[in-house]
Amino acid sequence: MTTRLPDWLARRADLMPDAPALIAGELRWSFADLHRAANAAAARLRGFEVEAGQRVASLMGSNPGFVALLHAMPRVGTSCVPLNTRLTPPELVWQIGHCRAPLVLYDQAHAATIEQIRAQLPAVRFELWRPFVDRAELEAAPESSRLIELEAIQSIIYTSGTTGNPKGAMISYANHWWSANASALNLGLLPNDCWLAILPLFHVGGMSILMRSVIYGQKVVLLERFDAGAANRLIDSEGVTIVSVVATTLQRMLEERGQRAYPSHLRCMLLGGGPAPRPLLEACAARALPVVQTYGMTETASQAVTLAPADALRKLGSAGKPLLPLELRIDAPPLQAGEILLRGPMVCAGYVDDPEATAAAIRDGWLHTGDIGRLDEEGYLYLLDRRSDLIISGGENIYPAELEAALLAHPGVAEAGVVGVPDQEWGQVPVAFVVARQPAQVESLLAELPNFLFERLARYKLPRRYFVASELPRTASGKLRRNVLRRQLEKGIV
Amino acid sequence: MTTRLPDWLARRADLMPDAPALIAGELRWSFADLHRAANAAAARLRGFEVEAGQRVASLMGSNPGFVALLHAMPRVGTSCVPLNTRLTPPELVWQIGHCRAPLVLYDQAHAATIEQIRAQLPAVRFELWRPFVDRAELEAAPESSRLIELEAIQSIIYTSGTTGNPKGAMISYANHWWSANASALNLGLLPNDCWLAILPLFHVGGMSILMRSVIYGQKVVLLERFDAGAANRLIDSEGVTIVSVVATTLQRMLEERGQRAYPSHLRCMLLGGGPAPRPLLEACAARALPVVQTYGMTETASQAVTLAPADALRKLGSAGKPLLPLELRIDAPPLQAGEILLRGPMVCAGYVDDPEATAAAIRDGWLHTGDIGRLDEEGYLYLLDRRSDLIISGGENIYPAELEAALLAHPGVAEAGVVGVPDQEWGQVPVAFVVARQPAQVESLLAELPNFLFERLARYKLPRRYFVASELPRTASGKLRRNVLRRQLEKGIV
Repeated sequence: MTTRLPDWLARRADLMPDAPALIAGELRWSFADLHRAANAAAARLRGFEVEAGQRVASLMGSNPGFVALLHAMPRVGTSCVPLNTRLTPPELVWQIGHCRAPLVLYDQAHAATIEQIRAQLPAVRFELWRPFVDRAELEAAPESSRLIELEAIQSIIYTSGTTGNPKGAMISYANHWWSANASALNLGLLPNDCWLAILPLFHVGGMSILMRSVIYGQKVVLLERFDAGAANRLIDSEGVTIVSVVATTLQRMLEERGQRAYPSHLRCMLLGGGPAPRPLLEACAARALPVVQTYGMTETASQAVTLAPADALRKLGSAGKPLLPLELRIDAPPLQAGEILLRGPMVCAGYVDDPEATAAAIRDGWLHTGDIGRLDEEGYLYLLDRRSDLIISGGENIYPAELEAALLAHPGVAEAGVVGVPDQEWGQVPVAFVVARQPAQVESLLAELPNFLFERLARYKLPRRYFVASELPRTASGKLRRNVLRRQLEKGIV
Repeated sequence: MTTRLPDWLARRADLMPDAPALIAGELRWSFADLHRAANAAAARLRGFEVEAGQRVASLMGSNPGFVALLHAMPRVGTSCVPLNTRLTPPELVWQIGHCRAPLVLYDQAHAATIEQIRAQLPAVRFELWRPFVDRAELEAAPESSRLIELEAIQSIIYTSGTTGNPKGAMISYANHWWSANASALNLGLLPNDCWLAILPLFHVGGMSILMRSVIYGQKVVLLERFDAGAANRLIDSEGVTIVSVVATTLQRMLEERGQRAYPSHLRCMLLGGGPAPRPLLEACAARALPVVQTYGMTETASQAVTLAPADALRKLGSAGKPLLPLELRIDAPPLQAGEILLRGPMVCAGYVDDPEATAAAIRDGWLHTGDIGRLDEEGYLYLLDRRSDLIISGGENIYPAELEAALLAHPGVAEAGVVGVPDQEWGQVPVAFVVARQPAQVESLLAELPNFLFERLARYKLPRRYFVASELPRTASGKLRRNVLRRQLEKGIV
């Protein structure tokens, strides 16, 4: 039997109408306000003639309009496809086409981008999503909440794959519900908890904060654009208790903060998005900042393995143990490194319209993460490598295969290989190796490639350096050996 | 797909082996200790040759042996049938026979009772369940935890019905899981939370504390026998933060406490088991004792509707709002009183081997509680009557129909009617009306009935007073009008 639950936001609006739900700049919405905004958003969606079962894509910043849209989805029966605002027009066109969304909503900040892609998707309706500032619109919107089907798809979040094209992970309401409860069982649930959201809401890490907030009845403080000073000030002024960060944002916040101590109500810096540099963890430990490392991914609706607060210092550098409802297995003998496998009710159902990728990733319920880790004698996970080839740059995942495909699209490129190199600010940045079709054209090729990729790939994915090689290291079967490229870079051979 | 989760206790033992799990008298078990005790209990169960899918009945006090037994159940795949230790031998024989348990476990305190029923159940194996005091036994027991199937039946708890015979509510692990999470979403989850268990563990209210404790990773303080002084001392000495109480126990604790204030770490007196007397609630409010009223039942695996702590004083006397995953409906026009209907993932699957009672109680997922309540303008539930005829005495449910059937078994009784009357100590006590077959034998009948019932019914069910009438008030269709009897008592007519 499918489990249906009362609409989470409607319940919170009923139970605690005047409690603060969302703070964003000057805007302060109570749960009753947020509920009305979701009603208004649902009314707008119906006006755009979307139907239950359809997908609605969004290209927006981290603003209250997006929050209202997200909570309107279960009321209309639609699934959200939150597009990464850093993508290039070709990347956006591909994802919108792939998910077959009949409607794309965008905010004013992304109107220019939409103009660049509108003509390429003639069957798609594009609508400007105005802020919810008209009190009359909020008051007039009819009550729209209804039961939430836990197995329904809440969102489709594209995550680039090792095979080149992005895959749309289908996240259900059940995934979010289990994730929220699992997180609470680990971090606790305090009466004055307040989560600061500074990570993009189009990623699962940001979006899951919004889902948890209406399950918990908890205030969310939203920062439209990351700014270390603003984040630090909000922690003080809004009584923030938990912040989700990636290493780069945490580093910048610490630098901006200088010697000023963080307030004692800040009880958890939840650090995700890849292995954390040890010096950063030690700097936090030195100032008694409670950093809790976590390892998760789109396919697990955020946190999967989290270090319990009590172990934060004792197990510095570990991602902890699997959250209660998840099972974890390392595909290797005890204490040795191997692929991390996860199973449990937070694991997504698969990838939209991609049975092959789904079957490859999820077998007998086990998600094959592709990430490499090992468990110590006490069963704590240490993450060694996120997918052998994955590059994590400022919390964003960059898949070498995607960049290589883009490079190979240039007529002058015969072969391409991309690897990540350490970077003090971003953790890692990508570096490209190419083999030229015409050795005589090497120089013009090196001059052309940056612009060529600039038009095709999001900024954060662009290689920082290019090398031309006469050939690329390959296995006997012809598979690119990226680890050899990486070693060449480390040894300064190239 | 059935959801399977890692064994909750095993996970906690892995995550926090040395944290305190269970305190009972001199005994202090960590989660690792409790896990080993569950392993030892599982090994014993296997030694008694029970198989997965079978039911194991228990007749025990609130002691650590029962806790270990409970956590061993999912490891062996058996369901627990916790027998109410206050039942008489005939009541016990009926329940053991009805649930077809091949094995009954009992502790030393109940050995004499077992001797009274053993001969009547020749096919049943009875085994003494010794305390887990042998360190070697605990150490030697093999690891036994395995995945918990959420839909599997964790326990069968008999609850008397309006039709005479008790019905065995089948509580699943899913019911407990959802209930624990729902409770946390309402009461919060603080790092040092500690629950004092003073209610019998054979009721769902007590048992659910044990299930929550291994889901939350929380210390439980167990009191084998309720004693107001001991309960008050444990609150101080063990840092108790939450106590589940019924009105009678709370009243006694307040009296014993006198003027001494409760410590500030005591953050919630969770008051269930029927409508609370207003003077008691006001006495608690006067001493700033945070009482949180709750309304629940066996069929919802404990709390269903709970007053949020923030509303405890503003809505004195209300049972609150339904916990997040539950829907509540009153079968009446808005603001009027009617039967309380509940739907959601905490509602049990039905009654064991009783499809008729199941179909009558649960329709389209809605549990028809039989209890009468109304919602105020803000949607807060006020409980008017627990099932029109139910008598609640010291937190125990007494069903008039069951007593009437027992009275009618006496050859001198032609008709019988039972109602509850207010009682300062117990809330309510039952009073019996009978019509004698031979008017001349009224006096001998009145002399015989108390002993006659004493052998058949648990002590707490015994009528406090008996009245002989020439006839009983009935509807045209012959249905007993208990409300008329109640009014006659109130007016002092009889």
